Amino acid sequence: MSHTTKDKKKLLSRIRRIKGQSEAIERALEGEGECEEILQLVASCRGALNGLMAELIEGHLRFHVLDPSQNTSPSQLEAADELMAVVKRYLN
Amino acid sequence: MSHTTKDKKKLLSRIRRIKGQSEAIERALEGEGECEEILQLVASCRGALNGLMAELIEGHLRFHVLDPSQNTSPSQLEAADELMAVVKRYLN
Amino acid sequence: MSHTTKDKKKLLSRIRRIKGQSEAIERALEGEGECEEILQLVASCRGALNGLMAELIEGHLRFHVLDPSQNTSPSQLEAADELMAVVKRYLN
Amino acid sequence: MSHTTKDKKKLLSRIRRIKGQSEAIERALEGEGECEEILQLVASCRGALNGLMAELIEGHLRFHVLDPSQNTSPSQLEAADELMAVVKRYLN
Repeated sequence: MSHTTKDKKKLLSRIRRIKGQSEAIERALEGEGECEEILQLVASCRGALNGLMAELIEGHLRFHVLDPSQNTSPSQLEAADELMAVVKRYLN
Repeated sequence: MSHTTKDKKKLLSRIRRIKGQSEAIERALEGEGECEEILQLVASCRGALNGLMAELIEGHLRFHVLDPSQNTSPSQLEAADELMAVVKRYLN
Repeated sequence: MSHTTKDKKKLLSRIRRIKGQSEAIERALEGEGECEEILQLVASCRGALNGLMAELIEGHLRFHVLDPSQNTSPSQLEAADELMAVVKRYLN
Repeated sequence: MSHTTKDKKKLLSRIRRIKGQSEAIERALEGEGECEEILQLVASCRGALNGLMAELIEGHLRFHVLDPSQNTSPSQLEAADELMAVVKRYLN
């Protein structure tokens, strides 16, 4: 079973929030909202998408790069944590 | 009239594409698609969102920071072009 | 006089710090330091470079896109502030 | 032996180029060069730093998250390649 299956509920809730945000941007554009307000909505949507991306990357790292059915040493797990810390720092 | 009104059709077409992409991500998650495929869909959606952001920033720069009802010198317009080139280089 | 002249002292102090950080990375690589430590040094250096970039962009916006010798309306100044807030959010 | 030792020569050559680029920015600021030119120099330096970062992350992934002394399956190696493709797409 893939991590996208295991975390399905959490990931679906993230993407549905993103879909809702894109609908809010659509409504703001249709309603000819303020440019500044629309910029903020787009920035928030991008933040949510980066959050989803970070979660997918983390699952990919822990379930596909590392193999949960094999012995993984503590130093490998620590290295994976360090990698995720760097990735999250960039994904924003 | 704001640039988000002037460019409304173009901006709406961008956000509708983004909404469609977020629906494709939702379907892929629901259908338990491959992690790699989902990562690609999210990366494409983020690219489309960055494109929308760049277009909003450009409108903001040309219609709000610069004032179309005033005289704007060629060197100011050139400076705005240079600024947009830098912003686009970062927004990806 | 350009903003890079006006802000020369502040900008020079930023780039000298960046040069110092790149020398620290060089020493860490020569001394075969820990990968994790080197990743942190590179991330900090990139943060400092983004800070320099944001300052250059802000100067460019206020001194070249806007023209300090002309009348700039409060709403244009506000729009410039909003643009910088968005740019800084992305430059990290 | 760490990957930062194994790839020492290549990594050192990257950081020395970055140091040279930061010196060029310093000279341009001291010589009161054009803002546009300085923005370009900073953008290039940031690109080089991102290249160094990507190389460090790749080494970290292949030598610390994965353990070269253990059996790594082809699907794990493929997952590592996919992860690096995503990381490089973001690091620019």
